[in-house]
Order: sequence, then C-alpha cells, then structure tokens
Amino acid sequence: MNTLLLEPHNGVLHITLNRPQSRNAMSLEMVNELRAVLAQLDDQVRALVISGAAGHFCAGADVKDLLSADDKAQLQALNRAFGTLLQEVEAVPQVVIVVLQGAVLGGGFGLACVSDIALADHQAQFGLPETSLGLLPAQIAPFVVKRIGLTHARRLALTAARFDGVEAERLGVVHFVERDPQALAERLDEVLGQVLRCAPEANGRTKALLLASVEQPTGALLDQAAAWFAEAVMGEEGLEGTQAFVQKRKPRWAE
Amino acid sequence: MNTLLLEPHNGVLHITLNRPQSRNAMSLEMVNELRAVLAQLDDQVRALVISGAAGHFCAGADVKDLLSADDKAQLQALNRAFGTLLQEVEAVPQVVIVVLQGAVLGGGFGLACVSDIALADHQAQFGLPETSLGLLPAQIAPFVVKRIGLTHARRLALTAARFDGVEAERLGVVHFVERDPQALAERLDEVLGQVLRCAPEANGRTKALLLASVEQPTGALLDQAAAWFAEAVMGEEGLEGTQAFVQKRKPRWAE
Amino acid sequence: MNTLLLEPHNGVLHITLNRPQSRNAMSLEMVNELRAVLAQLDDQVRALVISGAAGHFCAGADVKDLLSADDKAQLQALNRAFGTLLQEVEAVPQVVIVVLQGAVLGGGFGLACVSDIALADHQAQFGLPETSLGLLPAQIAPFVVKRIGLTHARRLALTAARFDGVEAERLGVVHFVERDPQALAERLDEVLGQVLRCAPEANGRTKALLLASVEQPTGALLDQAAAWFAEAVMGEEGLEGTQAFVQKRKPRWAE
Repeated sequence: MNTLLLEPHNGVLHITLNRPQSRNAMSLEMVNELRAVLAQLDDQVRALVISGAAGHFCAGADVKDLLSADDKAQLQALNRAFGTLLQEVEAVPQVVIVVLQGAVLGGGFGLACVSDIALADHQAQFGLPETSLGLLPAQIAPFVVKRIGLTHARRLALTAARFDGVEAERLGVVHFVERDPQALAERLDEVLGQVLRCAPEANGRTKALLLASVEQPTGALLDQAAAWFAEAVMGEEGLEGTQAFVQKRKPRWAE
Repeated sequence: MNTLLLEPHNGVLHITLNRPQSRNAMSLEMVNELRAVLAQLDDQVRALVISGAAGHFCAGADVKDLLSADDKAQLQALNRAFGTLLQEVEAVPQVVIVVLQGAVLGGGFGLACVSDIALADHQAQFGLPETSLGLLPAQIAPFVVKRIGLTHARRLALTAARFDGVEAERLGVVHFVERDPQALAERLDEVLGQVLRCAPEANGRTKALLLASVEQPTGALLDQAAAWFAEAVMGEEGLEGTQAFVQKRKPRWAE
Repeated sequence: MNTLLLEPHNGVLHITLNRPQSRNAMSLEMVNELRAVLAQLDDQVRALVISGAAGHFCAGADVKDLLSADDKAQLQALNRAFGTLLQEVEAVPQVVIVVLQGAVLGGGFGLACVSDIALADHQAQFGLPETSLGLLPAQIAPFVVKRIGLTHARRLALTAARFDGVEAERLGVVHFVERDPQALAERLDEVLGQVLRCAPEANGRTKALLLASVEQPTGALLDQAAAWFAEAVMGEEGLEGTQAFVQKRKPRWAE
C-alpha cells in the first residue's frame, strides 16, 4: 500500500490515510487501495478505525488527478469511483469508526458521512468548498443529506461555509467532539469497548437493517427482520449470548 | 386485561403497562392486549397516554416467550407480532403520548419511537441491548431510524450504549425531559390541554398526512391533501372552528 | 405587483411580502404574484431574499379567500395552488433565503420550510394553528416533515403549539437566530457574501442534487452526479474556478 498504513489489532483494523504532503487528499490510488482493503476483509475484523496521518483527516479530492484526466469520460469515471468507495464503506458489515482532526473537506467530509461512529477534535475543519471552485460536491451530496438531513446540507453546500468540530456535533455530522488528542484516544477506546461487547454477526445484520430502513417500505422490512431474528435466537451467537446472560458471565465475543 | 390498566378520562385513554415484576416486559399477552385495545377505540377517545407501572416504562421483550417458542417459525411470528403492534400504534388516528420513566429498553424503546409526543424523566434509561446478547433489534430498528435518523440510530444499535432522558431529548427520541414526577405530570397536563384544543378529525387526518409524507411522493400527496382540506373547510369541524374564531369563543371540542 | 415589493440589487432579488394590514397573509393574489416572479427569473439573479413588511413574515392563508370560495372544487384548487408555489420555491435554482420576524404561521411557516437558508429573530412566532380551527395544514405538512423530520413535525401539528425563534433554531426550522434587527441584517450580509463566492451554475446543480437525494435511489443519483461533475470541470465555471485558485485570485463570480 502506497497511500495507507494498516494495523490490525484485537479484531480492529486501524487504517491511516497516509499522504501527509497533501493533507491526505483522496487520490485515485488511495481510492483503489481502500477498495482493495475492504474487498479483503474477513470476519476476524469486527471494526475499522479510519484516521489521517500528521494531524489531518482528508482535505478532499486530489486536484492532480483532475488535471491529468484526458477527457470528460475519464473525469466522470474518476468521480464515480469515489462514490463507489463511499457506497462500499457504508455497506461493509464491520462497524466503521472515523477519527477526525484537521482538514475534513470535500471528499474527506463525504468519507466521514458514511461512518457508523464519528469522533472529532473540536478544532477540526469541516466544509464543502466545491461550488466556490465552480465544481460540485457530486458524489458527496447524497451522503451528506443522508447524514444530517436536507435542511443543514443545503446551507453547507450552497455557501461553502467552514465549521469546526463543535458545530459538526451540533449538526449531527459526528457523535462525539473532544478537546485534545488524549480525550479523542480515550473516547475511541470507550467506543471500541462498547462495539466489541456486541456480537459481530448480530451487529452486521443490524447494520444492514438500519441502512435498509432508509430505503425500503417498513412492512416488508419487518418481515425480513423477523426471519433474521429467529435465525439469531437459534444461531450460535444467540445461544451463547442468552446463556451468558443467564449465567452472569461475558459471552465469548466480549472476553 | 391481565397486563394492562385502562382508565378512560375526559376523552383520554390512560394505558398503564402493568407487569411490574418484570419491569413491564412486553410479553405476547401484553402485545395481544394492546392490539385489542387499539382495535376497539372509538371516536370518543381523542388521545392515548401510555406509561408503565412501578417506575418503569418497559424493559423490552419478555425472555420467557422466547424460551418457550417451539421452533423458528414460532419465533418469527412472535417477533413479527410486536412489529405489527408498533405499526398499529403508529397508525392510530388518536394522538399517542408516552410518559417514560425507568427502563425504556429494546421493545420499550421501540414503543416510545412510535408515539406522537414523548415525555421522559431525566433519569430514564434508554438503550438497544440486543446485539450485546447476540440478538437483533429486529422490529425496532426501522422505527428508531424513523424517529431519530440513521446517524444516531446506527451508533446506538451497534454499541448497545445506555443513555438517559437528557440525552434522549438531545437525540430527538423525546420532546420533553423533566426533573421529577411532579414536573412530568404538569407537562402531561399541558400537552393534553394543547391536544384537546385541536379538532379530533382534523388531527387524525393531519397525522395520516404527516406519516404519508415520509413515504409518498410530494406531488400526489399535495393533491390528496387539497381534497381533504376542502372537505375540512366545509365539514362540521371546519364550520365550527372558523365560526368560533370569528365569534372569539372556544370551539365545542375545546370546551 | 399589488402584494409584493421587489428590489433587485447586485444579483440578489429582495422580495417583500407586502400586505401589512393582514400581517402579510397569503392571499391567492400573493400566491399568483410570487409564482409570476419565479417564472420570470433569469440567470442574472443568483439569490432571492424573502421577508415581510412591517415586522411580520406571513400570518398564514388569507381567510377571506376561503370564505369567498363557491364550492369544494374551488377550495381544493385554492389550497393546491399554495402547494404548487411551495414546490416552485423549493425547485428554483437560485439560493432562497428567508428573514423571519413576527408571525411565521401556517402557510408562512410552510414558505419558511422551503428556503435554503433561514434567519429568524429570536421573538418570531412560529406555529401550525390549523387543527385548532378544525382545518388541516394540508399543503404545509409534507414540507414541515422534510424540513425538521417526522418526530418534531407531529408534535407541532397535533398540538398547534406556538414557539419562538430560539426554539425554531433548536428544532432545525431555521439556521440562525438573532437578537435584534441589526444582528439579523449583519447575518444576512454574511450569508449573502458566502453565497456569492459560490459559482451560480454549480450552486444550481448542487441544489438539484441535494433535493433529488431525498427522493431518488443513491446509485442512479451518483451516476448522474458524476456526469454533471465532469461537465462542471470542463465548463466555464470549473475552468475559471480552478485557475483562480491556482493564481490565488478571486474567480469572476466573486468579484
């Protein structure tokens, strides 16, 4: 991997966006490497933690890729590839946690919006600068709307306003805002501890249900959910979890 | 009724979940009795107030029902029946108010999420513990997403985190959080007073419009709404309401 | 125009609802004049600022129109015309800003809900009084749900509760709440300054993307968005914007 650092640790894969010379701008190479990582995940990995090197999360798309595109078709494919990455990060059964510091702009903001749990430094800088450059937050806009709703998304996208981590928490972009790196690290430990107390298959199916809830009619979804529920009760995790509860011990996945 | 206390009073039906020995856990019998109550409501009832006995709202599904199920099909039907209850509570034309104290967990959280107006004690305990037991918040997840959006729902469901009434208000689960039972009772009186100033048929149709707004295309819904508006203006409530306004008196439904 | 004041200024069209004798109640004539203004906008206009004369935004529908309607069909058409206005305000490619003071009731609340950016005085009075009159917030309800979500919309519509600008900001109806007319004017200047730094065509397409995000499946929308992105990069605005960025100067639309 040229653009990423990978550290597996206790069922958690820590991914560091690592192009510090450009504030971890999202090059096509980085998009492809992230997609390759996702494609190779196995069920030993229960959570992903994505952060950026050298004090920034991600400053957006890499302008060099845009400049080197030969024609409209290539630009379109380049742009769409980033959207595919966002769809894949959203759909992965693992719990995705992002740790946001410094620049969280454009595509970096989009990546934050597909996480399950987002932690931000209070001084992180968020924004959608695209239209101030004559461009569109094309692959990002739908995920921002899904994250914080139309009302806030339209103001942010149509003004290119910058805002900090405190505001990001108020708008619902992130779940936690912290005052310094130490507090961020402690919050991450706490959240990972909670995630690892939950059964991995149950979490994966629950995540699929939550995502489907936004798009599917309720009745059909509840039918599907009832079938999954019955499978879970009689499956390995359900048996272990309910037995552990009765025996007042931790289930095996939480040891 | 074995599991519920019912008290009709001035157009309001007060329903108390009454299985205090199990923190009002939602047994199949309770599901069936609640559904029977809803099926028999007439238009004399303008609002439902649902609370729990002995300091708790509802601690979730009753584990005994799960253990006594014979096979997967029975588990699936048992689970789906709870989802049907939630769909029916959501769709009822009456205004549904919940008063939340103590445990508001799993299915209890789901029931809170289909109310029109939710009041909570600041120390109430909310959470979705299912995946920590190897199970899924199967019938609940879609209603949590509808209540507070995907962003907050995914964190809560994938961490099984507990949170209190103050946080529930911040996340949008409840509309009001109060410091003690006296304040809760006063807030309930205030809200009921507001609801009873509104015309019952108009409220029922408005509720149907609001629920449809989440699922139907806007144009068709506005057409339907215009037809209902014209009917309301020329109907009994519309004539009474506009006359009372001109005559500076209360309309008959608010006396 | 009998019911509106229009002041074009530096690419911004300031529209004042001007029926102060009825707190700018939305008569059919006002609906028709607003629709005529929207139909004649050209691309010299980059933003609309809508406010009300004499200290109020808009107190709702004009009751005189209701009383003078001959039959149900006419009432239905009258009501639907207001919904069409809301759809047209929402869809206009210009950035729509509302400045809310005094009464923001019923249809006035609906109009606020289709703005891109909303500024409110802290003492503005919001509410949906319809059902307290035996009527329905028929054309308004879908836009309130889109603005602030089902959870808050149902409480407001089913209780006819009044609330002020501070609460409107907390609920997500408005983006900014200010303490006095001077602060409102300064906030408006700030917001207009941000909007005018963004490229007009890019903003128009971004707005279309954001609105489509609520209703269309993500995959198809991302395909469309990628095509628009490529067009923008190679179009006049994209070339100017990226060159200006490299040359560290303002793009022409921001001069």
